[in-house]
Amino acid sequence: MSETNLNSGLNIAELGQQLRVDAVRCSAEAGSGHPTSSMSAADLMATLLARHLHYDVADPEEPNNDHLIFSKGHASPLLYALYKAAGAITDEELLTFRAFGSRLEGHPTPRLPWVDVATGSLGQGLPVGVGMALAGRYLDRLPYRVWVLCGDSELAEGSMWEAFEHAGYHRLDNLVTVVDVNRLGQRGATRHGWDTAAYARRIGAFDWHTIEIDGHDTEAIDQAYSEAARSERPTAIIARTVKGAGVAAVADQEGKHGKPLPDTDEAIDELGGVRDIRVPVTPPGSRAAPHAFGEVEPVKLPTYEAGDSVATRTAFGAALAALGSARPEVVGLDGEVADSTRMQKFADAHPDRFFECYIAEQQLVAAALGMQARGWIPYVATFAAFLTRAYDIVRMAAISGADLRLVGSHAGVAIGQDGPSQMGLEDLAAFRAVHGSVVLYPCDANQAAALVTALADYPGIAYLRTTRGDTPVLYSADEEFSIASSRVLRSSADDQVTVAAAGITVHEALQAADELAQQGVRARVIDLYSVKPVDAQTLRDAAAATGNIVTVEDHWPEGGLGDAVLDVFSHGDPSPHVLKLAVHGMPGSATPAEQMRAAGIDHTAIAEAVQYLVNR
Amino acid sequence: MSETNLNSGLNIAELGQQLRVDAVRCSAEAGSGHPTSSMSAADLMATLLARHLHYDVADPEEPNNDHLIFSKGHASPLLYALYKAAGAITDEELLTFRAFGSRLEGHPTPRLPWVDVATGSLGQGLPVGVGMALAGRYLDRLPYRVWVLCGDSELAEGSMWEAFEHAGYHRLDNLVTVVDVNRLGQRGATRHGWDTAAYARRIGAFDWHTIEIDGHDTEAIDQAYSEAARSERPTAIIARTVKGAGVAAVADQEGKHGKPLPDTDEAIDELGGVRDIRVPVTPPGSRAAPHAFGEVEPVKLPTYEAGDSVATRTAFGAALAALGSARPEVVGLDGEVADSTRMQKFADAHPDRFFECYIAEQQLVAAALGMQARGWIPYVATFAAFLTRAYDIVRMAAISGADLRLVGSHAGVAIGQDGPSQMGLEDLAAFRAVHGSVVLYPCDANQAAALVTALADYPGIAYLRTTRGDTPVLYSADEEFSIASSRVLRSSADDQVTVAAAGITVHEALQAADELAQQGVRARVIDLYSVKPVDAQTLRDAAAATGNIVTVEDHWPEGGLGDAVLDVFSHGDPSPHVLKLAVHGMPGSATPAEQMRAAGIDHTAIAEAVQYLVNR
Repeated sequence: MSETNLNSGLNIAELGQQLRVDAVRCSAEAGSGHPTSSMSAADLMATLLARHLHYDVADPEEPNNDHLIFSKGHASPLLYALYKAAGAITDEELLTFRAFGSRLEGHPTPRLPWVDVATGSLGQGLPVGVGMALAGRYLDRLPYRVWVLCGDSELAEGSMWEAFEHAGYHRLDNLVTVVDVNRLGQRGATRHGWDTAAYARRIGAFDWHTIEIDGHDTEAIDQAYSEAARSERPTAIIARTVKGAGVAAVADQEGKHGKPLPDTDEAIDELGGVRDIRVPVTPPGSRAAPHAFGEVEPVKLPTYEAGDSVATRTAFGAALAALGSARPEVVGLDGEVADSTRMQKFADAHPDRFFECYIAEQQLVAAALGMQARGWIPYVATFAAFLTRAYDIVRMAAISGADLRLVGSHAGVAIGQDGPSQMGLEDLAAFRAVHGSVVLYPCDANQAAALVTALADYPGIAYLRTTRGDTPVLYSADEEFSIASSRVLRSSADDQVTVAAAGITVHEALQAADELAQQGVRARVIDLYSVKPVDAQTLRDAAAATGNIVTVEDHWPEGGLGDAVLDVFSHGDPSPHVLKLAVHGMPGSATPAEQMRAAGIDHTAIAEAVQYLVNR
Repeated sequence: MSETNLNSGLNIAELGQQLRVDAVRCSAEAGSGHPTSSMSAADLMATLLARHLHYDVADPEEPNNDHLIFSKGHASPLLYALYKAAGAITDEELLTFRAFGSRLEGHPTPRLPWVDVATGSLGQGLPVGVGMALAGRYLDRLPYRVWVLCGDSELAEGSMWEAFEHAGYHRLDNLVTVVDVNRLGQRGATRHGWDTAAYARRIGAFDWHTIEIDGHDTEAIDQAYSEAARSERPTAIIARTVKGAGVAAVADQEGKHGKPLPDTDEAIDELGGVRDIRVPVTPPGSRAAPHAFGEVEPVKLPTYEAGDSVATRTAFGAALAALGSARPEVVGLDGEVADSTRMQKFADAHPDRFFECYIAEQQLVAAALGMQARGWIPYVATFAAFLTRAYDIVRMAAISGADLRLVGSHAGVAIGQDGPSQMGLEDLAAFRAVHGSVVLYPCDANQAAALVTALADYPGIAYLRTTRGDTPVLYSADEEFSIASSRVLRSSADDQVTVAAAGITVHEALQAADELAQQGVRARVIDLYSVKPVDAQTLRDAAAATGNIVTVEDHWPEGGLGDAVLDVFSHGDPSPHVLKLAVHGMPGSATPAEQMRAAGIDHTAIAEAVQYLVNR
């Protein structure tokens, strides 16, 4: 496997120079970019492309293809130069780098079919690579290899060490990390400079196989890749390199990061001129089909009866277990709280598709990201508050156009005694502000089960918020709930006010409506379970009918349900009178009912708000 | 230093049992809490309190006090039991644990004067402790020690490894981490169980001194603390312990996490009954004053002339350098991008108050959090997009009631070619949804300088967004800009529409207003530089005068400037017609002008929106 015949006669050093030249050329054409960060890794990647990568360039969907992730996404000129050498793109397209409309963006994205995930926020490619390697080992069960090119600067990111720990623990021998130790970060020297032993000691302590090499010695690089292929552990190739290698005007100098070379023509001359070496990439040796865990069947959801009292987190867990039985692509990932989120039910039912990621939320979400890139349908669950830890990974996942299902439990002050550190109070805002996202917040068990199922085939980043405490079942088990819809739970021709609620506050709104009815005030109640996309038409109808809307949410006032309602009326049309109830003060410990009362989001507060609007 | 006279006759094992009993008692009284996670660390903390902690309990503000951070904040019953033993709180108060209104919350917060920062989201206490140790070494220059109690589960968090790297690199010998290896996480066994060598190998690789001990052997614990005091490196005491130690019904058993013991009376009996041991804590040996870097002086800000074109990031850097000269408490922290954020100007001017945290945004913000707990005034700067990496730290900082100044550069599509991975497009939403936060977005250099200065004495979490590209100077250098205010830049008695903008879009709004004026349409333009708190009165006046508001922001549509404006009209009052312009599609690479045009937030889009509202 280590040596292939296709390129045995190729001068790899020459290919490395071509990659440098092309990185220099496309950055010069763009007037920006990171040629020097590309030049340091050129020999590492030339050797990989010619001798060790197994990839059918004509069929990027081939399940047996290796995966190559540029964790140092700013080295995109090098990646695109590789694509050109492999015959995937033309030289003409290479020179569209960073131009408006080009798919060769400043940092790689899956607009290019050979890119699995977007990179450019450092420290993310490796944890995603861990997810792909997990998929290869435990899900696809195919012998593909995952190659991750990292910079030395990004080894400061904690997410990298979550990944080293996870991969080392699972002995992921299908994962190879190449660390391009070029000594220079953006601002100046890195912490450890060329001390490759410092990195080897750290990474080795996490049970990886480590190899220290000169990253410009193509023979040593070739041998390192062969050694990695033989290792029974994940391998880190820690390569001492020179930033800007090959051009004296920039080589190993500070202040040359992220800009074109000072003299392009001179640099190309020094690098030996423009070349047009084409490298046939070795195709995968296997053409096996990915493993399947069964056949797709209709989902048989657990059902709940009116009068039952069931937490939506419990309904989530049970629904996911049922979904897993019907849909063999469904995977569950936990941040060491499956007993609390109730993903444990999935773990019990489908242990071979359950992944414990421990308390490492960045690796947790990144692993799911890697798995969805291979076509699996991952659900991730932890406390809503702790998903904030992975916010940058989620942000980047949206740039990847990834399909992710994130489930946050223990939302809001309603959790009670544990206090604010455990309360998700910014989750709706954070996930609404993710491009193309869906944000759902069910109020009862049947609705939660239906929405968990609906998410399986819904594209993009989806977030579902669950409630810790038991709540009454409101809906029958055969009701259908679609994304971007809502339910009107109370309405009459005489409604004076609309109350828009979701999740825990739906129950408070219903109680308030009952109390108000006794006082002669008719309130319409909308269960706005789809916080994004929100059901604009139902809200517009309610606004037209009642003229007043009270919104009520167990969340900070900013960016949540209330803002989602206000947004409906931000297209230049007349707006109803809106009164927003949300959590304003910092909670402490208290019972759930005390918390709801103190926050001013319980039935009493809602009724008071309605009366205020009606009696003005 | 290791042995003190005050408690030489004390039976520490007895004190350990008292701590266990009190943890059991207060959790039983509350009906919730984490007694078993407290019991594992009781002997570790008993020994610390009696023999090694230097603290004036009566004067928590004493600068020479040691600092004790429970990174495993759920062990709050143990912390509160320690406070009782130290005479800081009464037994009566201990039993208010988790009750409404009690300052003894489910997880510790600085409502208690002996608590520096809130914990409860795991993996944060150590990076904050690194910040405090940096403050002790480089800022205060006092010999206090920082003690951090960690759980074994939280060693999976990447933030811990950012902290190990940072502390090891700086050889912070004033930092001691005690790892309570009780083998059991919330859901079940941890990855490494009782393999303390696995932890020692990893932590040691990051250049820490490590000591493995039996965490219930008080003699071994005592010796480990003494050894740590002699170490010239940060020390990790890795202690094998038993979760629920001392009570057979729960000891070393799964399923006993986070709940009161099954039989309180029996447990107390087994632990030897209720005790009332009081431990005089050894006061600090030094009463020296913290180091000062100079005298407070009036700030002499750089000034910019109308007609100049200056990036607000540049103005930020220059202003911070000037502020640092006037205010000796000001500190700068960088995530290895100071050349881009322009914090480099501060680094050059005040190298002894500049901290390079490399690409480790959690440690970056946590270090600032630790420093502000010691009274320093830290400013943190990195790309806006990468601050999302620290969102959970910021969330917790708000619970701490901390004062933090976060500066995010490279905001929005206006950065141009680098593409979406580098664009802060959710930062306004994320930081608006932080309790008590301030969110500022200046549009010119003089305004940026004034706001940087204003933040120095403003309490709470502040976020300031800067722009990458040069923009024209609009304001004179002597104008004052206060938080929660705004500027009306164009207005007349005939205004038909108001355009609310901030930062980069102010310039587009002004151009649109000029173009509209030529078309006979009068538009009021408001520079809404204080996105939170927003200037509600000016917006209400504009709404009353014009009836129409166009909002325009270089940000996703959710949670930013537009929502801040809508929020003003969410108190039940009549609302103007609002039309919100924001970034809807996923950007690629393009020039700044192409990006603004494609996103529909440039002057042309604004003018079209105004015409739409006027001509309906």
